[in-house]
Amino acid sequence: MKIWFEHNRRLREEWYEWCKDVPLEELVKKRTGGIGGILHTLFHIVDVEWSWLQGMQGKPDFQENFEEYMTLEKVMELDAKFRLDVEPFVQAWDDSYETRLFDVESPNGGEFIETWGVLMRHVIAHQIHHLGQISVWARGIDKKPVSPNLIRKGLMIPYETTK
Amino acid sequence: MKIWFEHNRRLREEWYEWCKDVPLEELVKKRTGGIGGILHTLFHIVDVEWSWLQGMQGKPDFQENFEEYMTLEKVMELDAKFRLDVEPFVQAWDDSYETRLFDVESPNGGEFIETWGVLMRHVIAHQIHHLGQISVWARGIDKKPVSPNLIRKGLMIPYETTK
Repeated sequence: MKIWFEHNRRLREEWYEWCKDVPLEELVKKRTGGIGGILHTLFHIVDVEWSWLQGMQGKPDFQENFEEYMTLEKVMELDAKFRLDVEPFVQAWDDSYETRLFDVESPNGGEFIETWGVLMRHVIAHQIHHLGQISVWARGIDKKPVSPNLIRKGLMIPYETTK
Repeated sequence: MKIWFEHNRRLREEWYEWCKDVPLEELVKKRTGGIGGILHTLFHIVDVEWSWLQGMQGKPDFQENFEEYMTLEKVMELDAKFRLDVEPFVQAWDDSYETRLFDVESPNGGEFIETWGVLMRHVIAHQIHHLGQISVWARGIDKKPVSPNLIRKGLMIPYETTK
Protein backbone atom coordinates (compact mmCIF):
# COMPACT_ATOMS: atom_id res chain seq x y z
CA MET A 1 0.00 0.00 0.00
CA LYS A 2 2.84 2.36 0.86
CA ILE A 3 4.52 1.75 -2.51
CA TRP A 4 1.32 2.73 -4.29
CA PHE A 5 0.87 5.97 -2.38
CA GLU A 6 4.56 6.82 -2.73
CA HIS A 7 4.34 6.25 -6.48
CA ASN A 8 1.17 8.30 -6.79
CA ARG A 9 2.63 11.12 -4.73
CA ARG A 10 5.72 11.27 -6.94
CA LEU A 11 3.64 11.20 -10.12
CA ARG A 12 1.55 14.14 -8.94
CA GLU A 13 4.74 16.08 -8.34
CA GLU A 14 5.98 15.20 -11.81
CA TRP A 15 2.69 16.43 -13.28
CA TYR A 16 2.95 19.68 -11.30
CA GLU A 17 6.41 20.20 -12.81
CA TRP A 18 4.97 19.40 -16.24
CA CYS A 19 2.23 21.99 -15.68
CA LYS A 20 4.80 24.72 -15.09
CA ASP A 21 5.64 24.65 -18.81
CA VAL A 22 2.00 24.90 -19.90
CA PRO A 23 0.03 28.16 -20.10
CA LEU A 24 -2.67 28.49 -17.45
CA GLU A 25 -5.34 28.85 -20.11
CA GLU A 26 -4.47 25.34 -21.35
CA LEU A 27 -4.49 23.98 -17.79
CA VAL A 28 -7.99 25.28 -17.06
CA LYS A 29 -9.44 24.79 -20.56
CA LYS A 30 -12.54 22.59 -20.77
CA ARG A 31 -11.77 19.25 -22.42
CA THR A 32 -13.75 16.19 -23.50
CA GLY A 33 -14.02 13.33 -21.01
CA GLY A 34 -13.24 12.79 -17.35
CA ILE A 35 -13.47 15.83 -15.11
CA GLY A 36 -13.06 18.04 -18.17
CA GLY A 37 -9.69 19.72 -17.73
CA ILE A 38 -6.07 19.20 -16.69
CA LEU A 39 -5.86 21.30 -13.52
CA HIS A 40 -9.38 20.40 -12.48
CA THR A 41 -8.39 16.73 -12.68
CA LEU A 42 -5.33 17.25 -10.49
CA PHE A 43 -7.50 19.12 -7.99
CA HIS A 44 -10.06 16.31 -8.11
CA ILE A 45 -7.42 13.63 -7.44
CA VAL A 46 -6.11 15.50 -4.39
CA ASP A 47 -9.60 16.19 -3.07
CA VAL A 48 -10.88 12.63 -3.54
CA GLU A 49 -7.83 10.98 -1.96
CA TRP A 50 -8.07 13.13 1.13
CA SER A 51 -11.85 12.88 1.40
CA TRP A 52 -11.89 9.07 1.36
CA LEU A 53 -9.14 8.80 3.95
CA GLN A 54 -10.85 11.34 6.17
CA GLY A 55 -14.14 9.49 5.80
CA MET A 56 -12.63 6.12 6.67
CA GLN A 57 -11.20 7.59 9.85
CA GLY A 58 -14.45 9.29 10.80
CA LYS A 59 -12.82 12.68 10.39
CA PRO A 60 -14.51 15.77 8.95
CA ASP A 61 -14.67 16.33 5.21
CA PHE A 62 -15.71 19.40 3.31
CA GLN A 63 -16.58 19.87 -0.32
CA GLU A 64 -13.86 21.81 -2.04
CA ASN A 65 -14.82 23.93 -5.00
CA PHE A 66 -12.45 23.98 -7.97
CA GLU A 67 -13.43 27.55 -8.82
CA GLU A 68 -11.42 28.62 -5.75
CA TYR A 69 -8.31 26.68 -6.83
CA MET A 70 -7.82 27.61 -10.46
CA THR A 71 -4.05 28.12 -10.38
CA LEU A 72 -1.31 25.51 -10.21
CA GLU A 73 0.03 27.04 -7.01
CA LYS A 74 -3.31 26.74 -5.22
CA VAL A 75 -3.70 23.08 -6.17
CA MET A 76 -0.15 22.36 -5.02
CA GLU A 77 -0.82 24.16 -1.73
CA LEU A 78 -3.98 22.14 -1.17
CA ASP A 79 -2.06 18.94 -1.93
CA ALA A 80 0.66 19.89 0.58
CA LYS A 81 -1.96 20.70 3.21
CA PHE A 82 -3.88 17.46 2.74
CA ARG A 83 -0.67 15.43 2.72
CA LEU A 84 -0.24 16.27 6.40
CA ASP A 85 -3.31 14.12 7.00
CA VAL A 86 -2.75 11.49 4.28
CA GLU A 87 0.88 10.65 4.95
CA PRO A 88 0.63 9.53 8.61
CA PHE A 89 -2.38 7.36 7.79
CA VAL A 90 -0.58 5.63 4.93
CA GLN A 91 2.59 5.17 6.97
CA ALA A 92 0.57 3.61 9.78
CA TRP A 93 -1.11 1.16 7.41
CA ASP A 94 -0.72 -2.52 8.22
CA ASP A 95 -2.44 -5.68 7.07
CA SER A 96 -4.91 -5.54 9.95
CA TYR A 97 -6.47 -2.45 8.35
CA GLU A 98 -7.39 -4.40 5.23
CA THR A 99 -10.60 -5.88 6.57
CA ARG A 100 -11.88 -2.94 8.59
CA LEU A 101 -15.31 -1.89 7.37
CA PHE A 102 -16.65 1.51 6.42
CA ASP A 103 -20.29 2.41 5.82
CA VAL A 104 -20.24 4.55 2.71
CA GLU A 105 -23.04 7.04 2.21
CA SER A 106 -23.84 7.17 -1.47
CA PRO A 107 -24.31 10.63 -3.01
CA ASN A 108 -27.37 9.15 -4.74
CA GLY A 109 -28.83 8.07 -1.41
CA GLY A 110 -28.50 4.79 0.42
CA GLU A 111 -25.42 3.20 1.94
CA PHE A 112 -23.03 0.42 1.20
CA ILE A 113 -20.17 -1.24 3.05
CA GLU A 114 -16.60 -1.62 1.86
CA THR A 115 -13.39 -2.79 3.47
CA TRP A 116 -10.64 -0.28 4.03
CA GLY A 117 -8.49 -2.41 1.73
CA VAL A 118 -10.87 -1.97 -1.19
CA LEU A 119 -11.32 1.74 -0.47
CA MET A 120 -7.58 2.35 -0.45
CA ARG A 121 -7.24 0.52 -3.78
CA HIS A 122 -10.13 2.58 -5.11
CA VAL A 123 -8.28 5.79 -4.19
CA ILE A 124 -5.04 4.53 -5.78
CA ALA A 125 -6.75 3.46 -9.01
CA HIS A 126 -8.73 6.71 -9.08
CA GLN A 127 -5.56 8.74 -9.50
CA ILE A 128 -3.99 6.40 -12.06
CA HIS A 129 -7.18 6.44 -14.13
CA HIS A 130 -7.41 10.23 -14.14
CA LEU A 131 -3.71 10.74 -14.92
CA GLY A 132 -4.25 8.46 -17.91
CA GLN A 133 -6.90 10.90 -19.08
CA ILE A 134 -4.55 13.86 -18.67
CA SER A 135 -1.93 12.00 -20.73
CA VAL A 136 -4.33 11.98 -23.72
CA TRP A 137 -5.10 15.67 -23.33
CA ALA A 138 -1.33 16.35 -23.09
CA ARG A 139 -0.77 14.78 -26.51
CA GLY A 140 -3.67 16.88 -27.76
CA ILE A 141 -1.61 19.99 -27.03
CA ASP A 142 1.58 18.38 -28.42
CA LYS A 143 3.20 17.89 -25.03
CA LYS A 144 4.84 14.64 -23.96
CA PRO A 145 2.99 13.35 -20.87
CA VAL A 146 4.62 12.21 -17.64
CA SER A 147 5.51 8.51 -17.75
CA PRO A 148 3.15 6.47 -15.53
CA ASN A 149 5.65 3.60 -15.15
CA LEU A 150 6.41 2.08 -11.76
CA ILE A 151 9.57 0.47 -13.08
CA ARG A 152 12.97 2.18 -13.04
CA LYS A 153 11.85 4.47 -10.21
CA GLY A 154 13.79 2.83 -7.38
CA LEU A 155 10.55 1.85 -5.68
CA MET A 156 11.97 -1.36 -4.28
CA ILE A 157 14.37 0.39 -1.92
CA PRO A 158 13.85 0.42 1.01
CA TYR A 159 11.35 -2.29 0.17
CA GLU A 160 10.42 -3.46 3.64
CA THR A 161 9.29 -0.05 4.77
CA THR A 162 7.41 0.88 1.63
CA LYS A 163 5.47 -2.29 0.87
CA MET B 1 -2.74 -8.48 -5.43
CA LYS B 2 -5.58 -10.86 -6.25
CA ILE B 3 -8.18 -8.12 -5.77
CA TRP B 4 -6.34 -5.93 -8.27
CA PHE B 5 -6.13 -8.61 -10.93
CA GLU B 6 -9.75 -9.63 -10.36
CA HIS B 7 -10.84 -6.01 -10.70
CA ASN B 8 -8.76 -5.51 -13.85
CA ARG B 9 -10.06 -8.74 -15.38
CA ARG B 10 -13.66 -7.68 -14.78
CA LEU B 11 -13.04 -4.20 -16.21
CA ARG B 12 -11.60 -5.64 -19.39
CA GLU B 13 -14.72 -7.75 -19.78
CA GLU B 14 -16.89 -4.68 -19.26
CA TRP B 15 -14.92 -2.85 -21.94
CA TYR B 16 -15.32 -5.79 -24.33
CA GLU B 17 -19.10 -5.59 -23.79
CA TRP B 18 -18.93 -1.84 -24.35
CA CYS B 19 -17.05 -2.42 -27.62
CA LYS B 20 -19.86 -4.61 -28.95
CA ASP B 21 -22.01 -1.48 -29.36
CA VAL B 22 -19.30 0.44 -31.21
CA PRO B 23 -18.60 0.10 -34.95
CA LEU B 24 -15.30 -1.63 -35.74
CA GLU B 25 -14.09 1.42 -37.64
CA GLU B 26 -14.33 3.46 -34.43
CA LEU B 27 -12.54 0.73 -32.45
CA VAL B 28 -9.57 0.64 -34.82
CA LYS B 29 -9.52 4.35 -35.67
CA LYS B 30 -6.23 6.17 -34.93
CA ARG B 31 -6.59 8.56 -32.01
CA THR B 32 -4.39 11.11 -30.24
CA GLY B 33 -2.38 9.91 -27.26
CA GLY B 34 -1.49 6.59 -25.68
CA ILE B 35 -1.29 3.62 -28.04
CA GLY B 36 -3.47 5.51 -30.50
CA GLY B 37 -6.74 3.58 -30.62
CA ILE B 38 -9.36 1.78 -28.53
CA LEU B 39 -8.93 -1.82 -29.67
CA HIS B 40 -5.17 -1.44 -30.00
CA THR B 41 -5.07 -0.32 -26.37
CA LEU B 42 -7.05 -3.34 -25.17
CA PHE B 43 -4.73 -5.59 -27.17
CA HIS B 44 -1.71 -3.80 -25.66
CA ILE B 45 -3.01 -4.26 -22.09
CA VAL B 46 -3.52 -8.00 -22.62
CA ASP B 47 -0.14 -8.41 -24.31
CA VAL B 48 1.82 -6.44 -21.70
CA GLU B 49 0.22 -8.18 -18.72
CA TRP B 50 1.01 -11.61 -20.09
CA SER B 51 4.51 -10.67 -21.26
CA TRP B 52 5.62 -9.35 -17.85
CA LEU B 53 4.29 -12.37 -16.01
CA GLN B 54 5.92 -14.73 -18.48
CA GLY B 55 9.20 -12.84 -18.17
CA MET B 56 9.15 -12.92 -14.37
CA GLN B 57 8.71 -16.67 -14.47
CA GLY B 58 11.46 -17.14 -17.06
CA LYS B 59 8.89 -18.40 -19.56
CA PRO B 60 8.93 -17.66 -23.28
CA ASP B 61 7.46 -14.44 -24.61
CA PHE B 62 6.79 -13.46 -28.19
CA GLN B 63 6.01 -10.11 -29.70
CA GLU B 64 2.39 -10.00 -30.76
CA ASN B 65 1.48 -7.77 -33.68
CA PHE B 66 -1.77 -5.81 -33.45
CA GLU B 67 -2.27 -5.96 -37.21
CA GLU B 68 -3.16 -9.64 -36.75
CA TYR B 69 -5.74 -8.92 -34.02
CA MET B 70 -7.83 -6.12 -35.44
CA THR B 71 -11.26 -7.43 -34.42
CA LEU B 72 -12.84 -7.50 -30.97
CA GLU B 73 -13.21 -11.28 -31.17
CA LYS B 74 -9.51 -11.82 -31.81
CA VAL B 75 -8.49 -9.64 -28.88
CA MET B 76 -10.96 -11.44 -26.61
CA GLU B 77 -9.60 -14.80 -27.79
CA LEU B 78 -6.04 -13.71 -27.08
CA ASP B 79 -7.09 -12.52 -23.63
CA ALA B 80 -8.79 -15.87 -22.89
CA LYS B 81 -5.71 -17.75 -24.08
CA PHE B 82 -3.28 -15.68 -22.01
CA ARG B 83 -5.52 -15.92 -18.96
CA LEU B 84 -4.71 -19.62 -18.77
CA ASP B 85 -1.16 -18.56 -17.89
CA VAL B 86 -1.95 -15.41 -15.89
CA GLU B 87 -4.64 -16.76 -13.58
CA PRO B 88 -2.69 -19.60 -11.91
CA PHE B 89 0.25 -17.28 -11.28
CA VAL B 90 -1.94 -14.64 -9.65
CA GLN B 91 -3.79 -17.22 -7.58
CA ALA B 92 -0.50 -18.66 -6.35
CA TRP B 93 0.76 -15.21 -5.30
CA ASP B 94 1.77 -14.82 -1.69
CA ASP B 95 3.76 -12.24 0.24
CA SER B 96 6.99 -14.17 -0.22
CA TYR B 97 6.87 -13.32 -3.93
CA GLU B 98 7.01 -9.59 -3.21
CA THR B 99 10.77 -9.38 -2.83
CA ARG B 100 11.84 -11.83 -5.54
CA LEU B 101 14.07 -10.10 -8.05
CA PHE B 102 13.91 -9.99 -11.82
CA ASP B 103 16.62 -8.72 -14.16
CA VAL B 104 14.76 -6.66 -16.73
CA GLU B 105 16.32 -6.23 -20.14
CA SER B 106 15.55 -2.74 -21.33
CA PRO B 107 14.39 -2.38 -24.94
CA ASN B 108 16.83 0.54 -25.15
CA GLY B 109 19.70 -1.66 -24.05
CA GLY B 110 21.06 -2.28 -20.58
CA GLU B 111 19.42 -4.04 -17.67
CA PHE B 112 17.82 -3.12 -14.40
CA ILE B 113 16.49 -5.05 -11.43
CA GLU B 114 12.99 -4.87 -9.98
CA THR B 115 11.14 -6.83 -7.33
CA TRP B 116 8.22 -8.97 -8.43
CA GLY B 117 6.07 -6.79 -6.17
CA VAL B 118 6.90 -3.65 -8.10
CA LEU B 119 6.52 -5.41 -11.45
CA MET B 120 3.05 -6.69 -10.55
CA ARG B 121 2.00 -3.20 -9.49
CA HIS B 122 3.43 -1.85 -12.73
CA VAL B 123 1.24 -4.30 -14.68
CA ILE B 124 -1.84 -3.38 -12.66
CA ALA B 125 -1.28 0.38 -13.04
CA HIS B 126 -0.51 -0.08 -16.73
CA GLN B 127 -4.04 -1.30 -17.42
CA ILE B 128 -5.72 1.34 -15.25
CA HIS B 129 -3.74 4.10 -16.96
CA HIS B 130 -4.62 2.89 -20.45
CA LEU B 131 -8.32 2.37 -19.65
CA GLY B 132 -8.34 5.98 -18.44
CA GLN B 133 -7.17 6.96 -21.90
CA ILE B 134 -9.92 4.93 -23.57
CA SER B 135 -12.48 6.65 -21.34
CA VAL B 136 -11.53 10.02 -22.86
CA TRP B 137 -11.77 8.66 -26.40
CA ALA B 138 -15.17 7.14 -25.51
CA ARG B 139 -16.53 10.58 -24.60
CA GLY B 140 -15.07 11.83 -27.88
CA ILE B 141 -17.49 9.54 -29.71
CA ASP B 142 -20.35 10.42 -27.35
CA LYS B 143 -20.32 7.08 -25.56
CA LYS B 144 -20.42 6.72 -21.78
CA PRO B 145 -17.23 4.92 -20.67
CA VAL B 146 -17.10 1.93 -18.33
CA SER B 147 -16.86 3.00 -14.69
CA PRO B 148 -13.37 2.38 -13.29
CA ASN B 149 -14.57 2.28 -9.68
CA LEU B 150 -13.50 -0.46 -7.30
CA ILE B 151 -16.32 0.36 -4.92
CA ARG B 152 -19.77 -1.22 -5.13
CA LYS B 153 -18.34 -4.19 -7.03
CA GLY B 154 -18.52 -6.73 -4.21
CA LEU B 155 -14.73 -7.02 -4.20
CA MET B 156 -14.53 -7.59 -0.46
CA ILE B 157 -16.20 -11.01 -0.60
CA PRO B 158 -14.58 -13.48 -0.24
CA TYR B 159 -11.94 -11.11 1.05
CA GLU B 160 -9.47 -13.58 2.50
CA THR B 161 -8.98 -15.42 -0.76
CA THR B 162 -8.82 -12.37 -2.99
CA LYS B 163 -6.52 -10.03 -1.03
